[in-house]
Amino acid sequence: MRFLAFEGLDGSGKSTLINGLDQEFSARGMGCVISREPGGTPLGNAVRDLLLKVDAEHPVPRAEALLYQADRAQHVEKVIRPALAQKKWVLSDRFAASSLAFQTGGRLISQEEILWLNRFSTGGLEPDLYILLDLSVEESLRRMAGRPQEADRFERESKDFHERVRQAYLRLASQDPSRWLVLNSSETSEQMLHKLLAHLQGLRWLV
Amino acid sequence: MRFLAFEGLDGSGKSTLINGLDQEFSARGMGCVISREPGGTPLGNAVRDLLLKVDAEHPVPRAEALLYQADRAQHVEKVIRPALAQKKWVLSDRFAASSLAFQTGGRLISQEEILWLNRFSTGGLEPDLYILLDLSVEESLRRMAGRPQEADRFERESKDFHERVRQAYLRLASQDPSRWLVLNSSETSEQMLHKLLAHLQGLRWLV
Repeated sequence: MRFLAFEGLDGSGKSTLINGLDQEFSARGMGCVISREPGGTPLGNAVRDLLLKVDAEHPVPRAEALLYQADRAQHVEKVIRPALAQKKWVLSDRFAASSLAFQTGGRLISQEEILWLNRFSTGGLEPDLYILLDLSVEESLRRMAGRPQEADRFERESKDFHERVRQAYLRLASQDPSRWLVLNSSETSEQMLHKLLAHLQGLRWLV
Repeated sequence: MRFLAFEGLDGSGKSTLINGLDQEFSARGMGCVISREPGGTPLGNAVRDLLLKVDAEHPVPRAEALLYQADRAQHVEKVIRPALAQKKWVLSDRFAASSLAFQTGGRLISQEEILWLNRFSTGGLEPDLYILLDLSVEESLRRMAGRPQEADRFERESKDFHERVRQAYLRLASQDPSRWLVLNSSETSEQMLHKLLAHLQGLRWLV
């Protein structure tokens, strides 16, 4: 079993890629747990509401950072570690790198502080592989505008905020290339899935 | 203006003492803000629900610690710092010492980690004075049992948990005696208020 975390701007195709990989796993008879942050647990879903809703008091940047970490602590202990202990693969839509990209890139909290918080909330657990679905900010905003649901608190942030988040992701990936696979989200979901499967086979995690 | 935080086991008489002091301040024409943790802000009240309710998924210890800190970050930035900037006194029912007492004493998370989190959430703000209302665990449980509302998640903890919390409070007070005033909660609220006023006059914070 392996723990894979999918990262990227909203609209970059994380859910579609996760579902595509899940179908591949099913076809091979492999157990797999799909989850997300924030919101992988009942508590996490309540925290997600506090983080994303627009019509309530907004969390200040440090409260926001701490709420994400609370969600993550619950997620690691209640979902990810139990699934790995049962030898299942875990596919998570966002994980600790989101806090680095959004809170240090977007909110300008120091990287050292977010790294400390990530270690505290995860107890040191890291994904075996991060998959970054890289997309331009223009294209992300264009795709989000086409969705039926109302924009959440992050989707209403400035273009500059999203650009800092994107650059933070690219920096994380370039600093730790053995743990990151960067996919180009302007490709089709089939092309991205094909590249991801080839990468997992190259690592000999899949046959 | 000064920032006072009131600490102690449930049932130790914090609210009564805060209200008594507030009346003294009003009689002297002094502005004062009464607040509490968790729950001093709209966001904090939503977090308080997640922390205390019994009939939902319970936060794991690290998620619990992080939720308290999220509440605190919001409380400091939205309530306490603005009130102090307006030259008002702040009387808070619980503050950072509660995290030390409940999470290191009760939940056995390391003191170093809670100290780090307290610094992060408060930006280094500390009360001018902590007032500990010290009460035996037996008496705390007896008083809580007499209340009409249902016991929350903490009130249902073991006697041993509450004993560790009490001892952690006493240790904090003994380690920093210039910042802590310890009152005996088996005295009447009038006696405790009298001692608190005398202490504040002794510090020349009140005339």
